[in-house]
Amino acid sequence: MKKTMLAAIGVLAAGIALAQQAQKPEDLIKFRQAGYKFMAWNTGRIKANLEGSYNKDEVAKAANVIAAVANSGMGALYAPGTDKAVGNAHTHVKPELFTDKEGVGKVAVAFNKEANELAKVAATGDAGAVKVQFGKLVEACKACHKDYRVEEKNEH
Amino acid sequence: MKKTMLAAIGVLAAGIALAQQAQKPEDLIKFRQAGYKFMAWNTGRIKANLEGSYNKDEVAKAANVIAAVANSGMGALYAPGTDKAVGNAHTHVKPELFTDKEGVGKVAVAFNKEANELAKVAATGDAGAVKVQFGKLVEACKACHKDYRVEEKNEH
Repeated sequence: MKKTMLAAIGVLAAGIALAQQAQKPEDLIKFRQAGYKFMAWNTGRIKANLEGSYNKDEVAKAANVIAAVANSGMGALYAPGTDKAVGNAHTHVKPELFTDKEGVGKVAVAFNKEANELAKVAATGDAGAVKVQFGKLVEACKACHKDYRVEEKNEH
Repeated sequence: MKKTMLAAIGVLAAGIALAQQAQKPEDLIKFRQAGYKFMAWNTGRIKANLEGSYNKDEVAKAANVIAAVANSGMGALYAPGTDKAVGNAHTHVKPELFTDKEGVGKVAVAFNKEANELAKVAATGDAGAVKVQFGKLVEACKACHKDYRVEEKNEH
């Protein structure tokens, strides 16, 4: 009985260790950066479609994936310990993102709203409407970057 | 008139240069890696939910974003010039991915099918069915890795 208990505790401890390992701050930083990077590919595709030959399906796919990333619950990737470079993960996040909950909530809600609206508009194939809504999404991105991200030179 | 033409050509050339710059092979490699990395966060979340406390909404969000990435048309990110390390982008891709069109088509279609099915099943909140379908998705990932990816030690 004691052995079984000890074994159970061992399995539990191993499980917790595994969960903690999967939640290392540097991993969280890399996961969130991957989300933004993948969104950047897709905002770039929408921009290219708006400026060149417009492919309804490509824009719809791109808008869908941006909305899905926006809705994925990325807030969880801003856990304690992810506010500065750790391991081989760097971050552009400003300290304010971890303290200004009200402000962060506002930009996050605005971003989700515009991303979901863009997915809806993109499904209609109306390039003019997509252009207007895409502009709103970009503004939502910029609003968050302005307050909570240290921008690199020549990035925009 | 000549000046206007020259100016127009200049703008066009700048536009093309910009488009080409946005499509640099190293950028394409980084974009596709971001897609897989973000999917990895989400497969990890689903796994954690199946092994621990099951949160229907979190699993649905994770499955949705995996499906959206799968449907995003990532094939375009395997353009010529992205078959080996370039600039500061490394890649695990095997040369066969660029030559075995039929085989790649099969694993890609299978992956999309399982990802879309997982999103559907996750929406029902049936943890048992999610477990079965998640297993199928993981097999689809592995099938592609086996043939077309140089796996790192200790990665799985």
